[in-house]
Amino acid sequence: MNTIRKILIIGAGRSASSLIKYLLDKSESENLQIILSDISLESAQEKIGNHPNGRALKLNIFDEVARKEAIKQADIVVSMLPARFHLGVAKDCLAFGKNMVTASYVSKELRELDEAVKSKNLVFMNEIGLDPGIDHMSAMQIIDRIRDNGGKLLLFESFTGGLVAPESDDNLWHYKFTWNPRNVVVAGQGSAAKFIQEGKYKYIPYQKLFRRTEILSIDGYGKFEALANRDSLSYREEYNLQDILTLYRGTIRRVGFSKAWNIFVQLGMTDDSYTMEGSETMSFREFTNSFLPYHPFDSVELKLRSYLKIDQDDILWEKLEELDIFNPNKIVGLKNATPAQILQKILMNEWTLKEDDKDMIVMLHKFGYEYKGEKKQIESSTVVIGEDQTFTAMAKTVGLPVAIATLKILNGDIKTPGVQIPTSKEVYEPILNELADNGIIFTEKKVPYLGYNPDTING
Amino acid sequence: MNTIRKILIIGAGRSASSLIKYLLDKSESENLQIILSDISLESAQEKIGNHPNGRALKLNIFDEVARKEAIKQADIVVSMLPARFHLGVAKDCLAFGKNMVTASYVSKELRELDEAVKSKNLVFMNEIGLDPGIDHMSAMQIIDRIRDNGGKLLLFESFTGGLVAPESDDNLWHYKFTWNPRNVVVAGQGSAAKFIQEGKYKYIPYQKLFRRTEILSIDGYGKFEALANRDSLSYREEYNLQDILTLYRGTIRRVGFSKAWNIFVQLGMTDDSYTMEGSETMSFREFTNSFLPYHPFDSVELKLRSYLKIDQDDILWEKLEELDIFNPNKIVGLKNATPAQILQKILMNEWTLKEDDKDMIVMLHKFGYEYKGEKKQIESSTVVIGEDQTFTAMAKTVGLPVAIATLKILNGDIKTPGVQIPTSKEVYEPILNELADNGIIFTEKKVPYLGYNPDTING
Repeated sequence: MNTIRKILIIGAGRSASSLIKYLLDKSESENLQIILSDISLESAQEKIGNHPNGRALKLNIFDEVARKEAIKQADIVVSMLPARFHLGVAKDCLAFGKNMVTASYVSKELRELDEAVKSKNLVFMNEIGLDPGIDHMSAMQIIDRIRDNGGKLLLFESFTGGLVAPESDDNLWHYKFTWNPRNVVVAGQGSAAKFIQEGKYKYIPYQKLFRRTEILSIDGYGKFEALANRDSLSYREEYNLQDILTLYRGTIRRVGFSKAWNIFVQLGMTDDSYTMEGSETMSFREFTNSFLPYHPFDSVELKLRSYLKIDQDDILWEKLEELDIFNPNKIVGLKNATPAQILQKILMNEWTLKEDDKDMIVMLHKFGYEYKGEKKQIESSTVVIGEDQTFTAMAKTVGLPVAIATLKILNGDIKTPGVQIPTSKEVYEPILNELADNGIIFTEKKVPYLGYNPDTING
Repeated sequence: MNTIRKILIIGAGRSASSLIKYLLDKSESENLQIILSDISLESAQEKIGNHPNGRALKLNIFDEVARKEAIKQADIVVSMLPARFHLGVAKDCLAFGKNMVTASYVSKELRELDEAVKSKNLVFMNEIGLDPGIDHMSAMQIIDRIRDNGGKLLLFESFTGGLVAPESDDNLWHYKFTWNPRNVVVAGQGSAAKFIQEGKYKYIPYQKLFRRTEILSIDGYGKFEALANRDSLSYREEYNLQDILTLYRGTIRRVGFSKAWNIFVQLGMTDDSYTMEGSETMSFREFTNSFLPYHPFDSVELKLRSYLKIDQDDILWEKLEELDIFNPNKIVGLKNATPAQILQKILMNEWTLKEDDKDMIVMLHKFGYEYKGEKKQIESSTVVIGEDQTFTAMAKTVGLPVAIATLKILNGDIKTPGVQIPTSKEVYEPILNELADNGIIFTEKKVPYLGYNPDTING
């Protein structure tokens, strides 16, 4: 059969590069046409290039007629839109009987389509990027294996981070923005982070989040630290871990990042809830001074050191100076900006990837379990380094699982219908195998059980 | 003329005692009938007693017919309802041509009635309790005087607090609840506190609010501390202080309260944004432990001391122990409670006024100004001690200005129409005089100008 199968991708964002490349590379052998649609035709054209099996399409998703027409003509639809726009696409896919793939969290509204999706025998695959996505698949593979062998899960901890690759790591924070900087600046705000340790519920409020890190270590890459995510407990349901004693999810940074970031938190610089007076003409120094008590003589530097009890020879201090937050000549230049927006601007001066910089994705899972009366632990990790500024580690780890899932659904290799996430063996097994072929490889090792039990901890 | 004038009071809350007493005491000489209405007839009856000029009325304010009827028959209406319910009452007052008095902040919707209120020549007086209320009047009297004499305001700082009277002060926190405990527990949350010092905008986030106190001193009552209110800058408009260099409003506590309260803030115990698992059967000790890292051996006490770096011989520690937050036998007993609700319950065990306890209201204003090239400063303060648990300082300072204003509006002594707050001389002058007759007396003293200028501060 030689019928061309049309894959409609909606949204030509940053993570689309690896997704598109994978599908274009397979387009000859698999008889594919890739239609990349975006509100900006130029953006779509630039990303799809001159490939004979690629086509750029200008599409405004709020133009219902055009959207329905594009979806109707496709064989499968990949929505890379911001999560809040998936629902309209999903309803059209349902109406025209098309399978659909997204990398976003399943919304309540999308989940409610499950029955209808099943009745039409369709696959709506979600949360199949990096996190959520690769984390689900790589964790569930080991969780299922432990359970299939008769083991009982005691502990599951899972950590992911987008960082700068060691070869491009040239600042004191060991950090650069590899994804949406705004999300980094406001990370952790809102309700307390919630998790369980040895059956005890634990809550960390924002003002302490960056002082409650865990230290991690990955062979060949050294030490990292992790700070708690807000939503650890939702994974009890999703991974069927209802009785687990320890469940913790965290975000990975290089050691020392959080202690320094906490300075911004304590000053109030990450606040996104109000706008500052005169932000447009404010200097970086004035911005910093806004959070310190008034004094007629004392310098901003001395006030800050005294306020937050920072020694002048502390590395923390050098981290602040590196960001130039005391500079009286650099101007914010943002109208009616919140502290968080201003901080983001200051950080982007220093933490934007340079042309030759590479990013790095780090993921680490810890599984503690009991098997035949013995406590055991497995650690599984992957580190992915970006190739360049187009095929970043982030674009690969988000785009490849989406692309692989799309083709496997199109080919009927993944076929169990419903609104779903990749936690079933039918889905994760073939995708993880192909991710490994593409260099996203998890390394497993056995370690002594490191839980938090009296039996295993001294003192 | 002997016509009886009817004053309708809606809402027989805690602050109504002094209000009712004042009006009943005047009812003979002034020909008044006081109709105290409440959703609970018993509550109204209990408060109005058997006074021949008093009448209790059961009134559900959501029963539109009954509400309109009650308002129609009154000569003036005092709404002591929660602020969000004033608007319905105000619209009826407008329709039936009745003057109205409230102790609440003017809402945007209420302000929008201003034109209509003026066109009917009505007085809708608001913010005429303690704070807002007495603060407006006592500050504006001095601000107007300084300006009328040709002085130029440089600094206005204003502080109010509801505390326990010295004779009933028997705990280490020097604090008891004299008003709504919930407001105390969640105080300061949300956007940063914002004010100006020497022309510089300053912002304090919640996580630092309780570490940025100012020390105050009031003759005969010793030292206090103040923490910044959220809304200082709105007073520029209201008091016509647009060019002022320093503007700060704060809440008064006894010295040391805030440093200890900050422990709750840092732990996350004041958070009202999520509910805790198993709150109903949780012990006070388990509640405290929820905010600390898990450890198989270390005690909750040691973990807390280490986490927040509290020495074991620090008075902070005794303050925590006094509240019994480490007790494993006291049970929270609240279903699906937020940390803030649980903390409130714990505090109410210790900080509820006992039968013989008296409360205390403290208010202090600082006015810095320039007069004929010289910088001067005035401090004005009042301290009011409650008589008992009925005629508390809070009830007096909220209820008396409301009562006095009501009678003066009824008698036509206050007559400039409109939706207003008591910042004009016509209003504050006679009311402050009569408050003084009732024991609410401001003491003024001249002090050296204490601004924050290079000229006046050393080092």
